[in-house]
Amino acid sequence: MMTATTTITAEPGSPILDMSRDFDATPEQLLRAHTEPELLAQWLGPHRLTTEVEQLDARHGGAYRFINGERDGSATYAFRGVHHGDPTVDGITRTFEFEGMPGHVTLEKVWFEALGDGRTRLHARSVSMAVEDRDGMLASGMEKGVNEGYERLDALLPTL
Amino acid sequence: MMTATTTITAEPGSPILDMSRDFDATPEQLLRAHTEPELLAQWLGPHRLTTEVEQLDARHGGAYRFINGERDGSATYAFRGVHHGDPTVDGITRTFEFEGMPGHVTLEKVWFEALGDGRTRLHARSVSMAVEDRDGMLASGMEKGVNEGYERLDALLPTL
Repeated sequence: MMTATTTITAEPGSPILDMSRDFDATPEQLLRAHTEPELLAQWLGPHRLTTEVEQLDARHGGAYRFINGERDGSATYAFRGVHHGDPTVDGITRTFEFEGMPGHVTLEKVWFEALGDGRTRLHARSVSMAVEDRDGMLASGMEKGVNEGYERLDALLPTL
Repeated sequence: MMTATTTITAEPGSPILDMSRDFDATPEQLLRAHTEPELLAQWLGPHRLTTEVEQLDARHGGAYRFINGERDGSATYAFRGVHHGDPTVDGITRTFEFEGMPGHVTLEKVWFEALGDGRTRLHARSVSMAVEDRDGMLASGMEKGVNEGYERLDALLPTL
């Protein structure tokens, strides 16, 4: 099977970043993989890093914190945020901040659209507080990390 | 004394909305007026409506809910969100949603800049998930409500 790739759209001069990607899974399976800590830890992040889900409280006001680490222990990268609203297949809405760049908070929404053939399209929209923040995310190599994470998610979903 | 007015900036085609407004107060007084429920209820919202602060938990993950009401009891308008990070004079970051338009969530940051002469400049930046959401906020008459609320805040601050 071909590995699907993630479509990333970022209009120049806008703080909005859009992503979409198809999966052989139901919306409910994708929701579980995004909101259950022990599932999320199995797929999130680039291959070269470890992923720890320190906290993931998937409800209105619930906080999360993920930690990526170099495999030789030389560095860690932590991300945190809070959920707005209770997550459903129609939307997980949450804030996002890389703790290494404090104050550069984004708001993101991820939702799952059933395609009618057993497959589901994941949509994600992220808005930054400034266009430069959005451009910095793109320049950080996020695309590689996102695609590598979704490859592991492809492998995890049939087990749910 | 002249009443200060709020400067509102909204570039066409962007989901960003900026506001600034000067007050005869310290950053710490403005922070208290924004984060203590019994103070916020005394100034927030347009003159023609009542304001109830049902919940205001000003800490990372803490939720808030405000309810404006017509004075004849004919209608209420509720707003909710969650705080990202613990509020300080350098930033109150929180999500915002009018419950009458569910799903149209914005991310806003309010911060207080000491001007060196005993006055303080309030800055507020809001980013919407879509340009149309930002434009809808502008078209809703928010400017009148914001200015009326800040007039009451002018009167409240000397008592703190």
